[in-house]
Amino acid sequence: MTLHIALIGAGRMGQVHAENLAFRVPGARLAAVADADAARAATVAGPLGARAESDYRRVLDDPSIEAVVIVTPTGTHARVIGDAAAAGKAIFCEKPLAMTLAECDQAIAAANRAGVTLQIGLMRRFDPAYRAARRQIDDGRIGQPVMIKSLGRDPRRTSLEFARRENSGGLIADMGVHDFDTARWLMGSDIERVHSEGGCLVYPELKDVGDIDNAVINLKFVNGAVGNIDLSRNAVYGYDIRTEVIGSRGSLMIGRLQHTPLLVLTAEHIAHDGVPYFMERYSEAYVEELRSFAACVAAGHTPEVSALDARAATAIAVAATRSLDEGRPVRVSEAG
Amino acid sequence: MTLHIALIGAGRMGQVHAENLAFRVPGARLAAVADADAARAATVAGPLGARAESDYRRVLDDPSIEAVVIVTPTGTHARVIGDAAAAGKAIFCEKPLAMTLAECDQAIAAANRAGVTLQIGLMRRFDPAYRAARRQIDDGRIGQPVMIKSLGRDPRRTSLEFARRENSGGLIADMGVHDFDTARWLMGSDIERVHSEGGCLVYPELKDVGDIDNAVINLKFVNGAVGNIDLSRNAVYGYDIRTEVIGSRGSLMIGRLQHTPLLVLTAEHIAHDGVPYFMERYSEAYVEELRSFAACVAAGHTPEVSALDARAATAIAVAATRSLDEGRPVRVSEAG
Amino acid sequence: MTLHIALIGAGRMGQVHAENLAFRVPGARLAAVADADAARAATVAGPLGARAESDYRRVLDDPSIEAVVIVTPTGTHARVIGDAAAAGKAIFCEKPLAMTLAECDQAIAAANRAGVTLQIGLMRRFDPAYRAARRQIDDGRIGQPVMIKSLGRDPRRTSLEFARRENSGGLIADMGVHDFDTARWLMGSDIERVHSEGGCLVYPELKDVGDIDNAVINLKFVNGAVGNIDLSRNAVYGYDIRTEVIGSRGSLMIGRLQHTPLLVLTAEHIAHDGVPYFMERYSEAYVEELRSFAACVAAGHTPEVSALDARAATAIAVAATRSLDEGRPVRVSEAG
Amino acid sequence: MTLHIALIGAGRMGQVHAENLAFRVPGARLAAVADADAARAATVAGPLGARAESDYRRVLDDPSIEAVVIVTPTGTHARVIGDAAAAGKAIFCEKPLAMTLAECDQAIAAANRAGVTLQIGLMRRFDPAYRAARRQIDDGRIGQPVMIKSLGRDPRRTSLEFARRENSGGLIADMGVHDFDTARWLMGSDIERVHSEGGCLVYPELKDVGDIDNAVINLKFVNGAVGNIDLSRNAVYGYDIRTEVIGSRGSLMIGRLQHTPLLVLTAEHIAHDGVPYFMERYSEAYVEELRSFAACVAAGHTPEVSALDARAATAIAVAATRSLDEGRPVRVSEAG
Repeated sequence: MTLHIALIGAGRMGQVHAENLAFRVPGARLAAVADADAARAATVAGPLGARAESDYRRVLDDPSIEAVVIVTPTGTHARVIGDAAAAGKAIFCEKPLAMTLAECDQAIAAANRAGVTLQIGLMRRFDPAYRAARRQIDDGRIGQPVMIKSLGRDPRRTSLEFARRENSGGLIADMGVHDFDTARWLMGSDIERVHSEGGCLVYPELKDVGDIDNAVINLKFVNGAVGNIDLSRNAVYGYDIRTEVIGSRGSLMIGRLQHTPLLVLTAEHIAHDGVPYFMERYSEAYVEELRSFAACVAAGHTPEVSALDARAATAIAVAATRSLDEGRPVRVSEAG
Repeated sequence: MTLHIALIGAGRMGQVHAENLAFRVPGARLAAVADADAARAATVAGPLGARAESDYRRVLDDPSIEAVVIVTPTGTHARVIGDAAAAGKAIFCEKPLAMTLAECDQAIAAANRAGVTLQIGLMRRFDPAYRAARRQIDDGRIGQPVMIKSLGRDPRRTSLEFARRENSGGLIADMGVHDFDTARWLMGSDIERVHSEGGCLVYPELKDVGDIDNAVINLKFVNGAVGNIDLSRNAVYGYDIRTEVIGSRGSLMIGRLQHTPLLVLTAEHIAHDGVPYFMERYSEAYVEELRSFAACVAAGHTPEVSALDARAATAIAVAATRSLDEGRPVRVSEAG
Repeated sequence: MTLHIALIGAGRMGQVHAENLAFRVPGARLAAVADADAARAATVAGPLGARAESDYRRVLDDPSIEAVVIVTPTGTHARVIGDAAAAGKAIFCEKPLAMTLAECDQAIAAANRAGVTLQIGLMRRFDPAYRAARRQIDDGRIGQPVMIKSLGRDPRRTSLEFARRENSGGLIADMGVHDFDTARWLMGSDIERVHSEGGCLVYPELKDVGDIDNAVINLKFVNGAVGNIDLSRNAVYGYDIRTEVIGSRGSLMIGRLQHTPLLVLTAEHIAHDGVPYFMERYSEAYVEELRSFAACVAAGHTPEVSALDARAATAIAVAATRSLDEGRPVRVSEAG
Repeated sequence: MTLHIALIGAGRMGQVHAENLAFRVPGARLAAVADADAARAATVAGPLGARAESDYRRVLDDPSIEAVVIVTPTGTHARVIGDAAAAGKAIFCEKPLAMTLAECDQAIAAANRAGVTLQIGLMRRFDPAYRAARRQIDDGRIGQPVMIKSLGRDPRRTSLEFARRENSGGLIADMGVHDFDTARWLMGSDIERVHSEGGCLVYPELKDVGDIDNAVINLKFVNGAVGNIDLSRNAVYGYDIRTEVIGSRGSLMIGRLQHTPLLVLTAEHIAHDGVPYFMERYSEAYVEELRSFAACVAAGHTPEVSALDARAATAIAVAATRSLDEGRPVRVSEAG
């Protein structure tokens, strides 16, 4: 009972998924790799024993392919999801689902119409530490969660092209979407309103493309809880992902600054390294999300991270970006 | 050349200062302890070899007393400062300087008129870790500071009486004043506007006296930098004071969760204790601020933490509290 | 240019190697799995696309097989190595090479005669933290290493059957061989003499099979440096592997007590988990040692951990066990 | 009911005790300071309100002095203790009690004859972390302690003059005495035999005065438990004092590498400082041991660290030094 999966989009992140699908997902088989760049498709597919296609519609037409993993540019997600859903494939789509809520809704409607699984790659929910945190909350170890602090900091800025709002949604959408989803998931409540402050403080060239490099975002939850998220592109010490949940009877702190368990002790200082980047931080989560997807498809279960979750995170990002632009708290419902 | 100092107000915090003045401040001598409760004054003064008074005006009238340390209830600060300034005494006043900006201004004017030193007990500036952080910034180790995250969390709630706004200013004023001062000091910039979210989420009885127990406060600095402060009364794991400064070329993290350097490792977990409370956390800072005060008075120097700094922190607290009340960002200049 | 590798011995550790060979070693292909238990061979080989054999001589006779990974019981290593060498296969053999120095010599001679590669599975040399430590030493960061402290602690005792000296060599040989090898490798010197103290202190049933559960072993290196190793079967808090190297101008500390980056903070304590066991601790090292083996065979290079290294570690283990038995320091040269 | 105490010996360590006696020991009063260097006695006594003497016999003759704290050179301890005991004073004597067991016995006999309290300054027993560890053991949290690892590492070498065996006893006696005492105290058992390895590996000039700079010492306890202690004069990263106790149902780890709770995070590394030296590490313990002494004298209780404990630690040091000299395990009973 092996699930035959095709990868659509063989860029950097697509290659990570391809290797995981080929080797680390029990019950799944990487059957095909589609990429508009035929040479890239072939390079990725070959060593993994999959067939290569340059037109993803070819894999959608293949009835032996039961599921697709979509890692194309965000702007194309809604369309590819629509095509895949129409072809009856189960769908795993890399985050973010879409840049606009309209596109989110379009993708969700397509999946609903076809009755196919649609899981979004919010991989943090599959990180062992975040999962363990959620279990602690479910077990009542910290009582009622009342405050969340979460941060996502990149060790360097993204490309200027990607930084444009039309490509990435800007800093708050691109990075914050993980923390917004984490916040809803760990706090067990939707977010009612947000307030952002931010600035282009380290990389002046980002200003030219309309982006910022540092932001803080206040959260007010529907259930009354509060929170704050900070985002930065200049954590030069390493990729830094941490979350604290403060509860009525305890707290949780997720994250680790040190990558290699080695201390170097000299007369100057006692020092260790930082986490290089997201591949190193989330290597297990990238495997686990696909295992969960394959298992859900096989069992006919609802995926753990639905497209509605992704839409909710995007709505918060839209509201938080509007707050930054307009200098006022914005209700998430205003985002649509 | 010993500075003769009188303590005015011999409550819990006054007693800490009394012992430090008696034993740990070179060049200072605890000459008198004044407290409206004569018995308490005697109990504190006796073992320390100081004389006791029930009326603080008696020590102000004593020309051999050169300086006073004021630890009376906040609502009386402006008046006692006024009296002490008029008597020509150098003044150290416990934080907060006052609950209102009007009273701050009154105290500042009195000190200015008399030309006496007026230092406020924002002791965090004398904590070894915070001082070391400031040195790193001054030395350029992290480049330009662009974001600050700071938190103050108490292991339990304060008394309901103290929680009233007229007594403590409420959570944001009572606890946040340290973080607001830290933020200005470490970032090297004033704060332009603030936005607060908060709630009464753990101790419903606080609602009856008009206070909250958890808050997050966004900061926008005059120089463009951003920040966030969180405050909580339910850090049941220990007194938790931490600050992060993110710079263009590095970052700083101040604070420690563990008090006793002992790990207990069992089949259940690997565990350590937390920091009990502020006395344990700031024992050195309480000594250092008085040493600095005594040295400044002796040398005729401006104190390291002026009444203007205290006023600025209070102004931010007032603005942040108003933001909470009105659900909008508030400019610090609106606070007066 | 793919190296065709056969696994000989498909027990627990063999299965780890099988999966790594199948998926994670570029340039290698798991071609066959041999195990005297035919059903087990089939179970392991099947999902990995390899053929199964019950007699390892069948894979040795197959000229398309270029290399073997031997994970049979230690007592059979010398014989299987002899057979594989005679068949001209490159050989990776799980640790320990052999229980006796005579068998070590026999295996080494066989490999030398045949001119085939013989690498031993002392995987710690491929652990990222240990490798980073070695680089720091090579780069002169700690000056001259003068003392080493190393420890290996299991969270529970081994089976009584395995604990017998004829099966595992006893605690010092079974666990210490990694630390002895680490010591030689990081200190850049052979060990001249050892002195052991130990006892059966927690599991009295071990006494019946002649084993102990805790030991400390002093090391004196040929170059004058000193060291100590401790071994325990009752680190109930987790699998604990740590090493410190003290140098003339700095020190290194390798290892980490915490597995999942999650702190749980309650009124009782601040707690985290421990490392479950060696699979979790060394998952990367098990891959890396095979990658290195495949690369060495492909390039005709000498393996990074030779059979002579394994022999040296065994000689130290023999001497340290004799020291325990005889209550005196024993020169490693006495072990033969 | 104040205990009048005289300090005998006003060198560096004496000055620490003087200040603690003057300010931080409830129920005690520093009445006099005696030092053969009259100027030094005066300099230390003056600011603390004590009288100065150049001949310690003058304070012994003073019937108002009830207790003495002896911080003279080790070689004089036995004689001064004899004199103080004869004068009926309660005695606190800085560690080590004496360099030879004969002198230890002489001091113990003198105190016994006079029936006076004799406490030795093995301050580690009063360190909060070590005390907390002992409580965990007493409470059964780790089951039966079966192994101890302890280390004492100085950030730099001592003076060559002090390094001579006749002055300090050499590395093992000077530094190890704390770990030997810790080992007996935490393990609840005497030590039966020891085996040392050591060398002069970093400071060749120590060889000329007969000392070494690094050592490891195996311990075998009377109850069967095992242990190891390492000592070093080249922990350039900071004063390093750590102890691990491995029990049948849990373990303890005492000690902390970091002094100031500040992390500096740059692109090169994440770094913090180390512990400067023993004053910083043991500031609380130095106060607590005197508080305990004063309380014991006042209550007529036996001191927590008796001269017999100090003698036992010295006997282990003598045996361990002999082991180093003779290259064999030495029974502690051989030391006398």
